[in-house]
Amino acid sequence: MSEGPPIGVGMLGYAFMGKAHSHGFRGLSYLTWPPPLTPRLIRIAGRDEQAVAEAARRYGFEDHSTDWRELIADDRVELFDNGGPNNLHAEPTIAAAETGKHVLCEKPLGLTGEESYEIWQRVAATGVTHMCGFNYRFVPAVRLAREFLEAGDLGDIRHFRARYLQSWLADPDFAVTWRLDREQAGSGALGDLGTHAFDLARYLVGEIGALSATMRTFVPERPGGEVTVDDAFESVVEFDNGAIGTIEASRFALGRRNSFAFEINGSKGSIAFDMERLNELQVYLEGSTPGGRAPGFRRVLVTETDHPFFVHWWPPGHIVGWGDTFVHELHHLLTAISGEGSVEPHGASLRDGYRASELADAVVRSAETGTRVEIAYRD
Amino acid sequence: MSEGPPIGVGMLGYAFMGKAHSHGFRGLSYLTWPPPLTPRLIRIAGRDEQAVAEAARRYGFEDHSTDWRELIADDRVELFDNGGPNNLHAEPTIAAAETGKHVLCEKPLGLTGEESYEIWQRVAATGVTHMCGFNYRFVPAVRLAREFLEAGDLGDIRHFRARYLQSWLADPDFAVTWRLDREQAGSGALGDLGTHAFDLARYLVGEIGALSATMRTFVPERPGGEVTVDDAFESVVEFDNGAIGTIEASRFALGRRNSFAFEINGSKGSIAFDMERLNELQVYLEGSTPGGRAPGFRRVLVTETDHPFFVHWWPPGHIVGWGDTFVHELHHLLTAISGEGSVEPHGASLRDGYRASELADAVVRSAETGTRVEIAYRD
Amino acid sequence: MSEGPPIGVGMLGYAFMGKAHSHGFRGLSYLTWPPPLTPRLIRIAGRDEQAVAEAARRYGFEDHSTDWRELIADDRVELFDNGGPNNLHAEPTIAAAETGKHVLCEKPLGLTGEESYEIWQRVAATGVTHMCGFNYRFVPAVRLAREFLEAGDLGDIRHFRARYLQSWLADPDFAVTWRLDREQAGSGALGDLGTHAFDLARYLVGEIGALSATMRTFVPERPGGEVTVDDAFESVVEFDNGAIGTIEASRFALGRRNSFAFEINGSKGSIAFDMERLNELQVYLEGSTPGGRAPGFRRVLVTETDHPFFVHWWPPGHIVGWGDTFVHELHHLLTAISGEGSVEPHGASLRDGYRASELADAVVRSAETGTRVEIAYRD
Amino acid sequence: MSEGPPIGVGMLGYAFMGKAHSHGFRGLSYLTWPPPLTPRLIRIAGRDEQAVAEAARRYGFEDHSTDWRELIADDRVELFDNGGPNNLHAEPTIAAAETGKHVLCEKPLGLTGEESYEIWQRVAATGVTHMCGFNYRFVPAVRLAREFLEAGDLGDIRHFRARYLQSWLADPDFAVTWRLDREQAGSGALGDLGTHAFDLARYLVGEIGALSATMRTFVPERPGGEVTVDDAFESVVEFDNGAIGTIEASRFALGRRNSFAFEINGSKGSIAFDMERLNELQVYLEGSTPGGRAPGFRRVLVTETDHPFFVHWWPPGHIVGWGDTFVHELHHLLTAISGEGSVEPHGASLRDGYRASELADAVVRSAETGTRVEIAYRD
Repeated sequence: MSEGPPIGVGMLGYAFMGKAHSHGFRGLSYLTWPPPLTPRLIRIAGRDEQAVAEAARRYGFEDHSTDWRELIADDRVELFDNGGPNNLHAEPTIAAAETGKHVLCEKPLGLTGEESYEIWQRVAATGVTHMCGFNYRFVPAVRLAREFLEAGDLGDIRHFRARYLQSWLADPDFAVTWRLDREQAGSGALGDLGTHAFDLARYLVGEIGALSATMRTFVPERPGGEVTVDDAFESVVEFDNGAIGTIEASRFALGRRNSFAFEINGSKGSIAFDMERLNELQVYLEGSTPGGRAPGFRRVLVTETDHPFFVHWWPPGHIVGWGDTFVHELHHLLTAISGEGSVEPHGASLRDGYRASELADAVVRSAETGTRVEIAYRD
Repeated sequence: MSEGPPIGVGMLGYAFMGKAHSHGFRGLSYLTWPPPLTPRLIRIAGRDEQAVAEAARRYGFEDHSTDWRELIADDRVELFDNGGPNNLHAEPTIAAAETGKHVLCEKPLGLTGEESYEIWQRVAATGVTHMCGFNYRFVPAVRLAREFLEAGDLGDIRHFRARYLQSWLADPDFAVTWRLDREQAGSGALGDLGTHAFDLARYLVGEIGALSATMRTFVPERPGGEVTVDDAFESVVEFDNGAIGTIEASRFALGRRNSFAFEINGSKGSIAFDMERLNELQVYLEGSTPGGRAPGFRRVLVTETDHPFFVHWWPPGHIVGWGDTFVHELHHLLTAISGEGSVEPHGASLRDGYRASELADAVVRSAETGTRVEIAYRD
Repeated sequence: MSEGPPIGVGMLGYAFMGKAHSHGFRGLSYLTWPPPLTPRLIRIAGRDEQAVAEAARRYGFEDHSTDWRELIADDRVELFDNGGPNNLHAEPTIAAAETGKHVLCEKPLGLTGEESYEIWQRVAATGVTHMCGFNYRFVPAVRLAREFLEAGDLGDIRHFRARYLQSWLADPDFAVTWRLDREQAGSGALGDLGTHAFDLARYLVGEIGALSATMRTFVPERPGGEVTVDDAFESVVEFDNGAIGTIEASRFALGRRNSFAFEINGSKGSIAFDMERLNELQVYLEGSTPGGRAPGFRRVLVTETDHPFFVHWWPPGHIVGWGDTFVHELHHLLTAISGEGSVEPHGASLRDGYRASELADAVVRSAETGTRVEIAYRD
Repeated sequence: MSEGPPIGVGMLGYAFMGKAHSHGFRGLSYLTWPPPLTPRLIRIAGRDEQAVAEAARRYGFEDHSTDWRELIADDRVELFDNGGPNNLHAEPTIAAAETGKHVLCEKPLGLTGEESYEIWQRVAATGVTHMCGFNYRFVPAVRLAREFLEAGDLGDIRHFRARYLQSWLADPDFAVTWRLDREQAGSGALGDLGTHAFDLARYLVGEIGALSATMRTFVPERPGGEVTVDDAFESVVEFDNGAIGTIEASRFALGRRNSFAFEINGSKGSIAFDMERLNELQVYLEGSTPGGRAPGFRRVLVTETDHPFFVHWWPPGHIVGWGDTFVHELHHLLTAISGEGSVEPHGASLRDGYRASELADAVVRSAETGTRVEIAYRD
């Protein structure tokens, strides 16, 4: 077996997502063996000269820049990976695609549904391969859930309920950051956490036709300035296939650190999941026990040899971490770029990125008007 | 110590609630020692002569009737306990009160908010002691949660999310019963399960000011006839104190048998609960650990000597059952009747019964109109 | 349906076990309908006149005595229920049987294996029905486990591990009680908790052929005197069927209030249980899922209509409590006395009581000698 | 900040441990920033030419060999990492040390206590830095447990119980491998799993003074040959500090895939852990709640910024995987080699490796003789 040819990678952003994506690129080159393409880390861009220089040395990029336009201008870069702040998603991503680079853009795609649509359309028009960074599609347990759903093992879906809870804003003395500023972030819990939930709702259950919502900013003033985004939202969702449920996100849920939990109830079974235990899937299958005397949710440790992505890892029972989802995500993207697969349906394309943003916009609209909002995606 | 004087009890209904209430009366007479009043089971009424006769013998009632009016006419009956079907709540309860009997009526109080209001008003006008059967206020862990909330241990409340999930209708071949008929039941999951959730929302967090909702009847035709009530509902709720959340109920959640689960997030801590593990309360208290190095939800087994109601029971760690909540509920009622306490705030009065029904009506209205509904209780 | 004829009950002990057994007798008369025999509570005996008089009034006994011999002498008493301290097990139980009364004796049966053998032999010789109070055989989940084991659903058994953990002695300032005095209690954690574990080991897996053990008294001096029994023991056990495992008990396990937990691993499946969640059985069945993609322990809520004992109770999902096991236990005993069943194999006879004590003695012997002890029961 | 100077690494074994260690070396160079030394992967050795050549390309080693002596002879190799089968631990490890290379040897150190002692003594005599691959000391939750224990937060330790359960041999048709052959593996569950448990027992609680044990080979014949090692063992252990407990391991526990679980009870608190949820530590601290009304084990997600090793990783709530423990382990080793720290007490030296093997030998001896074995380590 032989690894695939090299592909030049340029990255925007060296903080949280920069580290996570670098981890993915470096890991996939020996974990997913042989890799479809072998990432070559060309250039990383960020605002602070000293920090970006250190990031380049740390993560193994050959060059660095404080201006993202140098990334776009670098012909060695064939894949542009955008992990910058939300207000730097649109322009660089479009520019990269228009110079023929494949693009990966973090979520939420744009600051609004409108901007997200623009990014998707402009990029799609170029013909490059594109993906939006909904890495939770690449959690083994989430993929296994999708497999059960696709196979019809849960029957007709009745309910989907998801909550993405964090707690880092519960302390009112926590200072403002770019994430709390509408200009830079677009929205708060909604875009950061809620879009993950909307994306998995679509990936697992199907399209949402309508929703009703409310939003709150519990602490509008913090050290360092004003909070201009939401702290939390709640919504009731109605799927096109008849299922109904709730989707919510909050950064004010003490005791929940990164608890993205969902549950799906169907006519033949149910599934439950929590990102804090990302190697586990709770599975209930009606009538699957001899004599029917042992009904109950199974705690499935999604680490078996035949479970999604585990061919790349360890023997059963040896769990993977949150960071490892990027190995799967980037492996998927490189496979698509290599021509051996496609981003959709298992990866989120920029079209999916747009749709998640459209749903986030619907939440805002419903919260403001107090009415149920019908979802109408643009093509 | 000496038990209190006798009080004559008359009961309407000998099925599920008849058994549960009889269990409560019989148990409290030796478990809650000394009982404030000693229940004397006088007469039980129900439609089927043979069944009600057997129920009388089984539960220890001195007499039985097929006509509930005989209960009302029996002067020995001082407390009328109405566990009949929902469409038999209004008339007998009002009649009993108007002959001077104290009344306990199961939930949901009336078939609609309007009827519930009528029951409350007519009963309250008589001056008797009245209670609505929201027995989940009498779960030790729920009461402990209330104590933490009252003491301010959770700080300002940000979120309340509750789901009451059962699964008995997931099978489309399950036949219709009175519970699926609007004439007899008023509503489906909404009245049967949802009112429990609304009652605890009010008891624990406070009044709900507005809500948005949707409802579904997934299987409208079943063996034996049409289903004229809801199978499930979802709602977003907004509390007067600024908290937001979701409340839902379903009878289509496979794997969840009687899972009434809620979570509350406040600025100083969080609480989570599931009725399937009714002896446990998950408690998160910010900053309570030395050095702050062991944050996390505690699994509190609510069976300590100083925990609510446990003075009546066993040594720590020896759990109680669902049926035992009726011992606590009826003990509370008899204490109020004896003059040693009051139904409110820990018991639900018929006023609380009305308010839960008003919230249920708001769910219907919001689901039908697609708009957020402001709650305006009548006085 | 009609309840069975009356049977006169006499009880020794009005404290913890007196309350629990009274609860069982009173409850079974309407919960297990129709009861095989209808208990009539005749006389209760205990040392303190005032306390026993109040217990009689509270639990509904017609008479009371401070001398247990009056119980034996009372011809109306047909069943003698011994819930007194351990050093009052032998003489009254034998005396009762020898006057022709059926007997139920709490565990541990005698203060030693020798005394236990004597009790069993003397009682068995009289021909009365006899039972030892191992109530955990009457937990629905334990009975369900037994059914799976009997049906061979777990295959050949490889391991049994049980731990019975409490925490009430962890505080060294907790004062001595009769339970810490060898004269009155015989042993400590070993007899009180360990015999439960040995009994379930035998009931579920089979006879133990050999064991190796150690014991400790961590705090030998307490307020009020010396501790002359063990605080904890650990043992390795070898079953006749080839399985091996561990059995331990301690009163020094902080955070574990009444955690009697066991796990069984077989060649086809596994089972796990914890008394603090007594309505749940964790069940793993190899190969039971379509495609084998969802292996994992199921959390079975043992509350289904067809689960053990649940015919007597509530709809699925409505859990029972620790005290309710006595309803099942006493119903089983009365069924045996009525001639409609037998104490063995599902109830523990005094022979089973003796065998548990023999195993406890083996623990002491092994701990003292440092050698593996082969078990040789006397016939 | 600047990464440390390069260190040449040579590795024996390219299978499970070869992959895990390569993962550790590659990851630490950018995750633990700046790394104390920068690993340079020089040469990997293994028996199969094609496989070792591919491993070299995959993991990034510059050269490869089919003879481990070439590794020893390669002067560029400064650290010898032995992840080969157990019967290749002694000779290569000693040879490497005697040429002045630092050594890391996987567990169990030798095939017997005697051989382990020889390895330790011969290596220690050379003065190189040495470590035994007990990677579970580098699980964040295990390290946090150690911190609580060292600080005295649990008080005097009463109990330690550990079980390391896997299930891959439950199927009798599973064929023999080198791990089931005494010549190559030394022992079975005992050396492979049990030594991990003995090592953590020593690391967390202290030295074991005596033990009693039993062992079993449930399936002595398998496809491909005879099984000459143990399938499982059970032991009772007595610590020098007075604590007692059980330690066991099995490969026949269906439903347990890599469940290395332990619990520690002390006079002030308790701790529980399961490797299948390696990011969580269950912590009980007596008296730590205001008013004492919320006692209970906390589920601590060991992912906080100030938790062990998390400075290298992600924001709170974003969990790590099993493979990531090697990043911590190798970072620790390189820190020691760099002179900025020492292997002991947090890493296991070869002395610790020897002691774990001595305890394993004691299990064999006790199982064979049926007597309690006192532990006497050689200096």
